[in-house]
Amino acid sequence: MLFSDIASHLKLELVGEDVEIDSMNELSLSSPSQLSFAVHKRYANELNFSKAKAFLITNALIEHLPKGSSYIVCEDVSISMAEATKLFHKKPIEPHLGDAVVGEECYIDSMAKIEKGAVIGSNVTIMAGAYIGTNVVVGSNTVVYPNVTIYRDSVIGSECIIHAGTVIGADGFGFSHTKEGRHIKIYQNGNVIIEDDVEIGANCAIDRAVFNSTIIRRGTKLDNFIHIAHNCDIGEYSIFVAQTGVGGSTKLGRNCVVSGQSAFSDHLEIAPFSTFTARSGVTKSIDKSGGVYSGFPLMNHRDWKRLQVRIAKLNE
Amino acid sequence: MLFSDIASHLKLELVGEDVEIDSMNELSLSSPSQLSFAVHKRYANELNFSKAKAFLITNALIEHLPKGSSYIVCEDVSISMAEATKLFHKKPIEPHLGDAVVGEECYIDSMAKIEKGAVIGSNVTIMAGAYIGTNVVVGSNTVVYPNVTIYRDSVIGSECIIHAGTVIGADGFGFSHTKEGRHIKIYQNGNVIIEDDVEIGANCAIDRAVFNSTIIRRGTKLDNFIHIAHNCDIGEYSIFVAQTGVGGSTKLGRNCVVSGQSAFSDHLEIAPFSTFTARSGVTKSIDKSGGVYSGFPLMNHRDWKRLQVRIAKLNE
Amino acid sequence: MLFSDIASHLKLELVGEDVEIDSMNELSLSSPSQLSFAVHKRYANELNFSKAKAFLITNALIEHLPKGSSYIVCEDVSISMAEATKLFHKKPIEPHLGDAVVGEECYIDSMAKIEKGAVIGSNVTIMAGAYIGTNVVVGSNTVVYPNVTIYRDSVIGSECIIHAGTVIGADGFGFSHTKEGRHIKIYQNGNVIIEDDVEIGANCAIDRAVFNSTIIRRGTKLDNFIHIAHNCDIGEYSIFVAQTGVGGSTKLGRNCVVSGQSAFSDHLEIAPFSTFTARSGVTKSIDKSGGVYSGFPLMNHRDWKRLQVRIAKLNE
Repeated sequence: MLFSDIASHLKLELVGEDVEIDSMNELSLSSPSQLSFAVHKRYANELNFSKAKAFLITNALIEHLPKGSSYIVCEDVSISMAEATKLFHKKPIEPHLGDAVVGEECYIDSMAKIEKGAVIGSNVTIMAGAYIGTNVVVGSNTVVYPNVTIYRDSVIGSECIIHAGTVIGADGFGFSHTKEGRHIKIYQNGNVIIEDDVEIGANCAIDRAVFNSTIIRRGTKLDNFIHIAHNCDIGEYSIFVAQTGVGGSTKLGRNCVVSGQSAFSDHLEIAPFSTFTARSGVTKSIDKSGGVYSGFPLMNHRDWKRLQVRIAKLNE
Repeated sequence: MLFSDIASHLKLELVGEDVEIDSMNELSLSSPSQLSFAVHKRYANELNFSKAKAFLITNALIEHLPKGSSYIVCEDVSISMAEATKLFHKKPIEPHLGDAVVGEECYIDSMAKIEKGAVIGSNVTIMAGAYIGTNVVVGSNTVVYPNVTIYRDSVIGSECIIHAGTVIGADGFGFSHTKEGRHIKIYQNGNVIIEDDVEIGANCAIDRAVFNSTIIRRGTKLDNFIHIAHNCDIGEYSIFVAQTGVGGSTKLGRNCVVSGQSAFSDHLEIAPFSTFTARSGVTKSIDKSGGVYSGFPLMNHRDWKRLQVRIAKLNE
Repeated sequence: MLFSDIASHLKLELVGEDVEIDSMNELSLSSPSQLSFAVHKRYANELNFSKAKAFLITNALIEHLPKGSSYIVCEDVSISMAEATKLFHKKPIEPHLGDAVVGEECYIDSMAKIEKGAVIGSNVTIMAGAYIGTNVVVGSNTVVYPNVTIYRDSVIGSECIIHAGTVIGADGFGFSHTKEGRHIKIYQNGNVIIEDDVEIGANCAIDRAVFNSTIIRRGTKLDNFIHIAHNCDIGEYSIFVAQTGVGGSTKLGRNCVVSGQSAFSDHLEIAPFSTFTARSGVTKSIDKSGGVYSGFPLMNHRDWKRLQVRIAKLNE
């Protein structure tokens, strides 16, 4: 798509050379063929070093553009960005693609749906009511239980087990907000990658990334009702007990253990080998690996235990 | 159905004229063709002003009946009411109804199920494994992802997006309790109304009303795992982050923002433009609009932040 | 299977007579045809009284074996036990079994999947997208709403209602952990038993037992998003409000009431007629019946209410 077409869609003016755009991305991850955007002055430095050549920006940020950039000045970059994502949104169904390719020794139930362009490895089991979306890849020896939904473009590893009712690749929860209080959808044009040897319990939801990928790394095990938001990166061999949620873009290192009903805010970085007891509420990043944490607000587990004793004494 | 038939079913005696009854409702919302009920003396005044002509009541409430009422005196009104709801329960399947009507330019997957009597607008996408129940209405341009279940009589607006695994219109959680501790189902004979431009994440559950409707109003956006109980009314342009629950009959004003893992008790009224931070536990109504709240028990967000500091000091 | 075959699979040495093994079980529940295991010295006494004849044990426990036992000494019993469970895992599909048997007056939607060996009572409703696994039993008059998944070997009672999206019998969350931090699946070879007159809300998950059964007893009612882990035993006529979770092997007595977003640790025993207010976090067993509890850590409801007042005063 030409940058000028995007400008037309936004009813805004393009400054600089017209360029071919294949997708969108955040400043620090953009390639030259991607449209990027800067919503706030605090991104001035990132803007300066971005590899993108086309930007949606505010007037105040023009001076920080890399030399030779093309750009559109927006009154509200956040809204224009959301409107632009719609142009790159792929339809859920693509009837013109080639038939799915299915490996040897698979069991695909006649009541499962495999969309066009999917690639299924060998010895895969896909049970009744499961949905394998357009261009999804499923690795060998993986079992997909009934009524699982895997949205388009997701990549599922080998030796995975995905229990019934789980949804992989639904849209992340992203909106820009107008002054009048309406919410403009930011189309979620990334995907989900589940690495090998991952088991996902019943009725989980792992959202697709807005750009790039939400990742669940090798050997991680999720219990039931786990919510993983868009753009999370869950480290290898982690454990999530039931009813836990992880906010958008949060990254956990390997071998974290997260007990039931815990939650993480968005945009955190959690050191590997961190352990969280039940109902931990994690709102800050954790640098040091190997800690054990509890509570909301979060604290060291020992402090939390001692604090509960002190709190109980208030009743004496 | 005749009121005398209901009396027979309950094995109780009808006092007054026999009347034709088409459904049931609570005292203040009843029309003359509806059966209503009063379980407790505190409803004496509502009973007095009810437009219903047929009632299930206790002996003590006879004097508060509107003139000319027909009534059944029940030993346990709550149990009799539950038993009566069964008589008005509609079967999930109605094979005698006319075929569903589907608008132009729709994509309806051959593995989706559309029950009789449904009406689908134009340019609607209904993907594999989705279930559209009897008499459901779906507005134009709406997308229903795989394995969504929409129970009978639900009304879905235009420009909506409903993500995989979500259940709309399952029975609200209502029971009357016998003295021996058994639970008698109160059949949930209302429906769900989702207005236009609503997006609902993966694996949500929005229960049908016991009488009347559960309503999600225009432009509201729900993340994954949102629980909306029977008879809730969720205001326009509200935002619910993941794993949040709203108890029965609670009403939120427009543009509320509810962060992750929060919950609301039943029968609350929440002022518009209220914001709730993560894990808020709301047990009382809120009159004043525009506040920011936290904690369980709930308090102003600033007080909660200060309180956390004070609590942490107990450990010194 | 011969115990010697299990030894070969584990690449470990069998001591004693070879015996025929039909399944696995914990020490105190084993029959003579079951393989059992003892991972720790604290099980010495249970080992002594086990009825099993074949064991996976540590070197230190040999002296506590019942006379005439056969056994395999394992470096890591927990890992060997997990590896052995794989040998007893049943495939999700068994095409050689006989056709399902369906009672009179049933409505089975053509888009529901009934696997081989299932037995459906009379007057059962099974709606589109529901999945009834291999050898599942469904009692008479039960209603299974769309997109419910019932895994193989589950037993569902009569007069039950199972709402859409619910998953019954998915694998419990059980793993043994290697020293390098990998997680070895403990195959969940038990089942789920739902007794009569149980109603289960939308998008619940009730996991199958590792050995034996997860049980939901007669007359119990679950709201939406209830998580019941493997080997739980939920007493008769209990009530679970939305978004509640119960950890593995926890047993609740009859007529417990559990309010929204509460949770129970694993391996607890809860006395009958216990009531838990919203967000209770239960980490210890309860002996005395009839109590009302709140908070996390849990305390008597009255104490909790008083404590909240005292905590709020910290802000003065």
